[in-house]
Amino acid sequence: MLAEFDLIRRYFTLSCNDARQSGVALGVGDDAALLTPQPEHQLVVSVDTSVADVHFPSDAPADAIGHRALAVALSDLAAMGATSRWCLMALTLDQARFADDSATEAWLTGYARGFSALSQRHATVLAGGDVTSGSLSIAVTVMGEVPSGKALTRSGAQPGHVIAVTGALGGGAGGLAAWQQGERDSSHPLLARYLWPIPRLEAGEALRELASAAIDISDGLLADLGHLREASGVGADLSVDALPLAEGLEDALGTDAARQAALTGGDDYELLVTLPSAHVEQAQLQLAALGVPLHVIGECRDALGIHGLPAQRYHGWQHFKGETP
Amino acid sequence: MLAEFDLIRRYFTLSCNDARQSGVALGVGDDAALLTPQPEHQLVVSVDTSVADVHFPSDAPADAIGHRALAVALSDLAAMGATSRWCLMALTLDQARFADDSATEAWLTGYARGFSALSQRHATVLAGGDVTSGSLSIAVTVMGEVPSGKALTRSGAQPGHVIAVTGALGGGAGGLAAWQQGERDSSHPLLARYLWPIPRLEAGEALRELASAAIDISDGLLADLGHLREASGVGADLSVDALPLAEGLEDALGTDAARQAALTGGDDYELLVTLPSAHVEQAQLQLAALGVPLHVIGECRDALGIHGLPAQRYHGWQHFKGETP
Repeated sequence: MLAEFDLIRRYFTLSCNDARQSGVALGVGDDAALLTPQPEHQLVVSVDTSVADVHFPSDAPADAIGHRALAVALSDLAAMGATSRWCLMALTLDQARFADDSATEAWLTGYARGFSALSQRHATVLAGGDVTSGSLSIAVTVMGEVPSGKALTRSGAQPGHVIAVTGALGGGAGGLAAWQQGERDSSHPLLARYLWPIPRLEAGEALRELASAAIDISDGLLADLGHLREASGVGADLSVDALPLAEGLEDALGTDAARQAALTGGDDYELLVTLPSAHVEQAQLQLAALGVPLHVIGECRDALGIHGLPAQRYHGWQHFKGETP
Repeated sequence: MLAEFDLIRRYFTLSCNDARQSGVALGVGDDAALLTPQPEHQLVVSVDTSVADVHFPSDAPADAIGHRALAVALSDLAAMGATSRWCLMALTLDQARFADDSATEAWLTGYARGFSALSQRHATVLAGGDVTSGSLSIAVTVMGEVPSGKALTRSGAQPGHVIAVTGALGGGAGGLAAWQQGERDSSHPLLARYLWPIPRLEAGEALRELASAAIDISDGLLADLGHLREASGVGADLSVDALPLAEGLEDALGTDAARQAALTGGDDYELLVTLPSAHVEQAQLQLAALGVPLHVIGECRDALGIHGLPAQRYHGWQHFKGETP
């Protein structure tokens, strides 16, 4: 095993200048990182663990594994309307899976490249980490900021508020299915959605002043809408016809299975939001300027439960297995 | 697998009142936690992963595993002189290791009890987490605060400064050796040191105004002194006779092996600090009031390297294996 210190230093050492500009007074290489939060802001923090062969295929490209581990964590900040600032990366790596040290290094180089490219894109400084030996998994802690009292939560939806989603749905499940069928071309639109999810950070920030509640779609639209409804104490009418389906999904799966994937597939990392109807047009305009569509798919109701689904039951999707239990 | 949400809620849900008093505006149950940092302070953050059978025996008591996973992370905050405030806990759990659901629940109850007791002792609120399925490991992110510009780092040691350690050394290695020899009595003094390490948070805070540099002893005194020396650009004279040995260590191992364990054993989670000689007495008095001894074990030198060791070479200790490579 390469020494932890060497690994972290070689692949993830901060540029001091970059770091200072980003509120990092002291980064990788001391016992802890020293960060300077902005006054009048609250911290928004979350941790997500990605386990090989549970949350991603262990033989996925290393770049995608690094990207994805950070992306799924950043998606939680997006759902709070936060500006992402810092992250910590705890990588557990089984060196026995590599033929030799140069294979390990090649994997780490790809992994670090995928992770770093996404972190830079969202001005998120890697402020620290830990590298340990064991079964491949990655726990990423993300830290963002919101002006005090301005965070989006799950609990603000009210009857009459519109339900909308960013981007398109079902791509995560469709991409996983494609992977399992042997597709390996990263430019395949569904596979790209699964391997390289895009955290909707800019959209979340834009929605902060417009939406009444938000959650990211990691477990599937119905499951995550359930969490939002529970936290807000509202019901929902959904229009299944209005679900935006990921590019290529209907062609790959047919309409029914594509809708099933959109409703229950998970791994989409789009934002599910509620907003007063008076805010919809402005929200759509602001997100359009970011290149992100915002589709209205239903409305919050007094009566609890979800209405408007066809007779066929849609169950939750099991992580990675690609099956409904 | 019990659903993640249920696990987190059942075992780790925050008391809302407690949480609000601790700067947690929104805790477990939304996409991310919302924390309120103190003005004029910097954040001190670190993550540590504890992997079963790498960092702790998988058959150790669940209470100890929970305690230890948090303790080793908090130790990094202690080394920065930080006041601990919040943590995030990412637990990866292999349910297949349990005979049935009630065995899983019993383990989780013990684990949560050990984790929670230590977090409460140090007023550290569990603000969020993630529970996933896979090989047993725990990544704990800890967040503390220091008045801006006041953090202890590894880089402030100067020639002439005294080198000192809190508590006693070698207990981690001695306790692991006892465990490997079949000792299972948690009141065994060495085993207790290994299974239930005490993060020196109060001592770190007290030393913040007195010490010039600090690091926690996780890899072993020599290895961690090496990190401190490298960061500060100093050498060190050590007095091996002055090393404070953990209770029972000499009886168990004999003098030579006890010193070897103290120098290279690791897993002690004591603080190694440097301080101007004029500060030593005051530091000892303040730590005595906390019940923590502070032993002078050497002095920083201009000449790089470590001096004063006997002819026998002391190598680093390998994590968990209990052997020098």
